[in-house]
Amino acid sequence: MNFVDMIIKKRDGGKLSAKEIAAFVKGVTDGSLPDYQISAFLMAVLFRGMDAEETAHLTMEMANSGSVFDLSAVAGKKADKHSTGGVADTTTLILAPLVASTGVPVVKMSGRGLGFSGGTIDKLESIPGFRVNISEQEAIAYAQKSNLVLMSQTDTLTPADRKLYALRDVTGTVDSLPLIAASIMSKKIAAGADGIVLDVKCGSGAFMKDLPSAQALAKTMADMGHHVGRKVTAVISSMAQPLGQNIGNRLEVIEAIEVLKGNVKGDLLEVSLLLGGHMLLLSERVQTVEEGISLLQKQIDNGAGLAKFRELLLQQGGDPAIIEDYGKLPLSANSVTVFAKTDGYVFAMDTASIGRASLETGAGRMVKEQQIDFGAGIVMKKRLGDVVTAGEPLAVVYSQTQAQCERAAAILSDAITIDTQPPAPTPLVLDIIS
Amino acid sequence: MNFVDMIIKKRDGGKLSAKEIAAFVKGVTDGSLPDYQISAFLMAVLFRGMDAEETAHLTMEMANSGSVFDLSAVAGKKADKHSTGGVADTTTLILAPLVASTGVPVVKMSGRGLGFSGGTIDKLESIPGFRVNISEQEAIAYAQKSNLVLMSQTDTLTPADRKLYALRDVTGTVDSLPLIAASIMSKKIAAGADGIVLDVKCGSGAFMKDLPSAQALAKTMADMGHHVGRKVTAVISSMAQPLGQNIGNRLEVIEAIEVLKGNVKGDLLEVSLLLGGHMLLLSERVQTVEEGISLLQKQIDNGAGLAKFRELLLQQGGDPAIIEDYGKLPLSANSVTVFAKTDGYVFAMDTASIGRASLETGAGRMVKEQQIDFGAGIVMKKRLGDVVTAGEPLAVVYSQTQAQCERAAAILSDAITIDTQPPAPTPLVLDIIS
Repeated sequence: MNFVDMIIKKRDGGKLSAKEIAAFVKGVTDGSLPDYQISAFLMAVLFRGMDAEETAHLTMEMANSGSVFDLSAVAGKKADKHSTGGVADTTTLILAPLVASTGVPVVKMSGRGLGFSGGTIDKLESIPGFRVNISEQEAIAYAQKSNLVLMSQTDTLTPADRKLYALRDVTGTVDSLPLIAASIMSKKIAAGADGIVLDVKCGSGAFMKDLPSAQALAKTMADMGHHVGRKVTAVISSMAQPLGQNIGNRLEVIEAIEVLKGNVKGDLLEVSLLLGGHMLLLSERVQTVEEGISLLQKQIDNGAGLAKFRELLLQQGGDPAIIEDYGKLPLSANSVTVFAKTDGYVFAMDTASIGRASLETGAGRMVKEQQIDFGAGIVMKKRLGDVVTAGEPLAVVYSQTQAQCERAAAILSDAITIDTQPPAPTPLVLDIIS
Repeated sequence: MNFVDMIIKKRDGGKLSAKEIAAFVKGVTDGSLPDYQISAFLMAVLFRGMDAEETAHLTMEMANSGSVFDLSAVAGKKADKHSTGGVADTTTLILAPLVASTGVPVVKMSGRGLGFSGGTIDKLESIPGFRVNISEQEAIAYAQKSNLVLMSQTDTLTPADRKLYALRDVTGTVDSLPLIAASIMSKKIAAGADGIVLDVKCGSGAFMKDLPSAQALAKTMADMGHHVGRKVTAVISSMAQPLGQNIGNRLEVIEAIEVLKGNVKGDLLEVSLLLGGHMLLLSERVQTVEEGISLLQKQIDNGAGLAKFRELLLQQGGDPAIIEDYGKLPLSANSVTVFAKTDGYVFAMDTASIGRASLETGAGRMVKEQQIDFGAGIVMKKRLGDVVTAGEPLAVVYSQTQAQCERAAAILSDAITIDTQPPAPTPLVLDIIS
């Protein structure tokens, strides 16, 4: 194959064959295609798109570009979950122990975050001692015993995706629906679960800014999964405001534990139960989503979810004392409180700006090499529609330096709009596609 | 500047500032921008285009990316010429000596051909002994003495264009009007002439397939030149059939000499005189194009053009005996004649296919490393509208092997359509833009 001809074919709106896509992924994986040709091709894909068949071929070739996790030694239908990433979006730490506690195996690989706050792996690493680098053999042994493993993606999984993602990040070719779909789904398919629940975030704090884009991505990913015989359900949920109240690694671990203890209700709990309920449904543990949600709520009420989280910490070296004593988690030295300037209703939140404020505290990273401050972040004190009086706290910012706190507080102050009118109510779950 | 932001700006249809384009060309020239970012940017430009201002900035930054030829030591208004490339298009070897013989200095840098047949430099190198690698100092000394230098582009001229062209060639980003215009005009501007005549070829054998594209390219290039104070005229001429009768390096040298001797008339002569006439007009040697054409025709009739060509050979080491004895030029060992299969009129020629037949003989190269066979090529025996009878020769093919000859002959046979009706007459010159 002459790869220049393939670039030109896509550039001119042509449809690539299975053979061409296979040759492309092989060339990416074995390094025989030069980066400058790959990036020109990615830009052509960004402009021209890929149809369902091309995207399916790309996804499967990427999924099979490295080793594929074989979970057949773990009994039962395995469930997995992926979120496209939001602010204060810590559902995995809640639903994974809950789902596992009902007997459905959850072996979830996660990434480090690139953006507003850390990813699941960063959050877990804020727990002293917690090991995220788990081999395939270890993971299977753990899953057989506890039903629950949370781990870093192994180095041998989907090397083509790693290479392509790194290039997309530095060539302005991230925002392509088929490339996003193939990246996510190739990893999920290679990770071996039978049922996959996707949480597609939509709104100012999310990658997908509007519902039609979110629906298109959700549908594309669901189709990819079905195409290869996996059960997939995609939930589209709102990022009109941060999902939980805590943003930042330590803070999100604490909020997840509080939810598992039954102390915290609200949107974070609601979305966690909905996603977990769909995982139980895909794994045939329940007959309806409602039944799944009830069962998971019961696992909170009876302490089984929290017990499973404790078991996870013990299994992977994390200090279980953090569950009772949050003081054992790192905490940044400085804090600043953001106060309301006027009376009124919390009318709007610019979630993307709140994310940037989180980044400013040191809780996230914009480049791979950046060090995360596990103890930094933001505690939001209000939600949309809440009544506030001038001088009341809207949020508390934690960071290593006073200057960082003040920069983050200034961004936050601008990101929260107070008005004399309450906002129109916005639904938390916008659509469910399966 | 964050170059990823600049890629995204262009990708999303934004307009780049002079400062951004300057930083881009600097990064290309000094090697600080990685190829994968440059190629993603080039693909974004291919899709989004560049407006006149952006293209002008790009052209000037590229022109100034290396050394710039200073022809001020050569008296008079210097004339230059560029062709976008066609089949049997050997106007330079004819018009350069003719124009120089009237007292207008012609210092022309040319490239090696990538495509159907060799470029001007390849044609000159088919003359035993001819030196094309001339330094700036030599060129000035020659021009002061003879008014005529034909030479390779020097290594220090427009390094940004060399780098970008090499990348475009392997990333499917050649076919972009602003990138083509900037590449051509940056070289012509850096080469230092006062007046530039552009020969934009249009039709099946040319890069621009239709008149509107050819006009758009011609206008863009003329605007670029005017923008920087150069006089520019663009002639759009037809590639509905090969311009001359001979295709291939040795063969085109012979046809040029025959034209200079006054033995050959026709389209090649007509276009050469028209382009040369415009060069004389831009250099203020004449008052009208018609006057220029008459003067150049006179230089053929009185032998002054041929004498100037002989002077060029002597100056640059070429064997002047070739002028009287074409046997001193290399000739390929094998030949095959293509015969008409039916009676009728030559109704149509697929010039692109005729070009591919030329490539098959070994007269051209598709990759830089490929060796050209100077003695290979095609002699066309007919022109559009000619009456032919079955069994009459349509063309003769020359190549090193019989197999190559036969492959080329088969392509040629399919490329020439004979019909019972004569074709509608097509104009040779389609438009003139200045």
